[in-house]
Amino acid sequence: MTKNLRIGIIGSGSWATALAKMLCENVDSINWYIRDADTIKYISINHHNKDYLSSVAFDLNQLYMNNDINTIVEQSDILIIAIPSAFLKSELDKITVPLKHKIIFNAVKGIIPENQKLVGEYFHDIIGLDLAQIGVITGPCHAEEVALERLSYLTIACADIDRAKMMSEKLSCHYIKCSTSEDIIGTEYAAVLKNIYAIAAGIAHGLGYGDNFQSVLMSNAIREMKRFIKKRYKMKRNINDSAYLGDLLVTGYSNFSRNRYFGNMIGKGYTVKSAMMEMNMIAEGYYATESAYLLSKQDGKKKAKTPIINAVYKVIYKNKNPKSVFEKLTFKLN
Amino acid sequence: MTKNLRIGIIGSGSWATALAKMLCENVDSINWYIRDADTIKYISINHHNKDYLSSVAFDLNQLYMNNDINTIVEQSDILIIAIPSAFLKSELDKITVPLKHKIIFNAVKGIIPENQKLVGEYFHDIIGLDLAQIGVITGPCHAEEVALERLSYLTIACADIDRAKMMSEKLSCHYIKCSTSEDIIGTEYAAVLKNIYAIAAGIAHGLGYGDNFQSVLMSNAIREMKRFIKKRYKMKRNINDSAYLGDLLVTGYSNFSRNRYFGNMIGKGYTVKSAMMEMNMIAEGYYATESAYLLSKQDGKKKAKTPIINAVYKVIYKNKNPKSVFEKLTFKLN
Repeated sequence: MTKNLRIGIIGSGSWATALAKMLCENVDSINWYIRDADTIKYISINHHNKDYLSSVAFDLNQLYMNNDINTIVEQSDILIIAIPSAFLKSELDKITVPLKHKIIFNAVKGIIPENQKLVGEYFHDIIGLDLAQIGVITGPCHAEEVALERLSYLTIACADIDRAKMMSEKLSCHYIKCSTSEDIIGTEYAAVLKNIYAIAAGIAHGLGYGDNFQSVLMSNAIREMKRFIKKRYKMKRNINDSAYLGDLLVTGYSNFSRNRYFGNMIGKGYTVKSAMMEMNMIAEGYYATESAYLLSKQDGKKKAKTPIINAVYKVIYKNKNPKSVFEKLTFKLN
Repeated sequence: MTKNLRIGIIGSGSWATALAKMLCENVDSINWYIRDADTIKYISINHHNKDYLSSVAFDLNQLYMNNDINTIVEQSDILIIAIPSAFLKSELDKITVPLKHKIIFNAVKGIIPENQKLVGEYFHDIIGLDLAQIGVITGPCHAEEVALERLSYLTIACADIDRAKMMSEKLSCHYIKCSTSEDIIGTEYAAVLKNIYAIAAGIAHGLGYGDNFQSVLMSNAIREMKRFIKKRYKMKRNINDSAYLGDLLVTGYSNFSRNRYFGNMIGKGYTVKSAMMEMNMIAEGYYATESAYLLSKQDGKKKAKTPIINAVYKVIYKNKNPKSVFEKLTFKLN
């Protein structure tokens, strides 16, 4: 029944490219929305993406690429969203064809900055899709290791567990193992929050804190994540499952994480602006920090204790001195 | 009341030296059992330990060193045990003076190989001390970072919480923060088990698994540790506290961990014997693996699921091929 569902990938960065590679292991062909016509041309000639995971070779017979998002949406039953959150809204706003019968799987690890919504919330609240039409594809998974075919585990969440299973089958291969979950809200928040904690880990490293402290920070971060997510949506979940703890660890301990790198520069004394200019991009965790902070604040006196998110917020949004903010933070950890 | 309790450190390796440094921040003097008379002579002349944390300078007025363990035991009310587990029994067997009024704090992260007991169990079961006389000092804490005065967090566990607090006060200083716990069994097992998981992380790394897999391995390891410890002693504990998860992370993600290094050599194809010869020492996790495996086996059909411990056991005790053992393990993780 599900065999003929056509899959479209929206986005062409490293994670989108990794997802395209995984899908091409199992499905005959995929639709792929790539904003830049030159990138499509480049892939058509060279069989690989120029700027992302360039070692991944594609069979052109499996790819239908188009730089018109509506064409791709129209021709796909399932859309996998994999655009950096900074460009999400402007890209999604281009969609004029109906979405009401689509299944959306979100692979973005960020919050839409303009309205501070999770991607799933956006499709539910604004587009009006049913929760059963919305899913999440989450790691722990660096795209670079997918390119190298190093064994990685994904979690596929959907309120409709059969759809989660269907997507799992399409992504599983000799280097990808998938678990399924019904926790679309928790897994999506985990993917967002971990970037804030990676910024915190980077700031701490930049300030000269060592490995002993980092392990305490991560141990506190997972407890904080649990409290935060529980406030957003209470259900039975094991926060130590790979989609939550694993995803936190792969990012928090990675020297390649852009969020950690961003935090590291801040810890070393860069201003937020100069760090962003230096990186030539905005780390996902930057937006996530403000969103998570404000969201938590809405809960008033009942809000979850989030000392790490608060500390990162103070440093990157209120220009507080990272050294003194983190010194205060150390007394709130254990 | 507790002010006049005399503290003796048993052992002179890096962790013992780090503990001596911390204590010297707060107490006027400590007793220190150092097996090798030459080491005592060296410290007396040079004010630092030659082989371990040599950057740490001691004030000789604060140290009473002796190479006779009975003299140190006799003159101390509290004994901090910090000897590698391979030498524990032979050192403890030397003690002929009465121990019945002593308070023991165990700082060893290992199992006594000869009888497969935790250090706390040894003092309880064999020496006959009351549980309230036994405590645990645990990390996450690399001794090397204590030498650098990098902020670190310790957990001090004792069934008598006042004694835990007393020891916390003696160890806390501007670079050490202490939490207390009543979970002597759980914290001691966590410190032991984490070394097995560090061996597993090393084997995986040696076999070529990447960061994505490592995060899944650690996420499964903390769940496995929770199940294992719960079987040993059921009480309310948050396995994500620093003494459990933090300690696992600081070891599992450390390139300096001897256990991880040992595992890495095994993964790269060394035999256990040649890896040990190369390291010129036996990693604590080696003994821990057999003990944990056998202990779990005793529980029969009710035993906790411990796929990671079982895999490490098969590789390092049964000489099974690490590649195929870990391939099978990957299907048991999620």
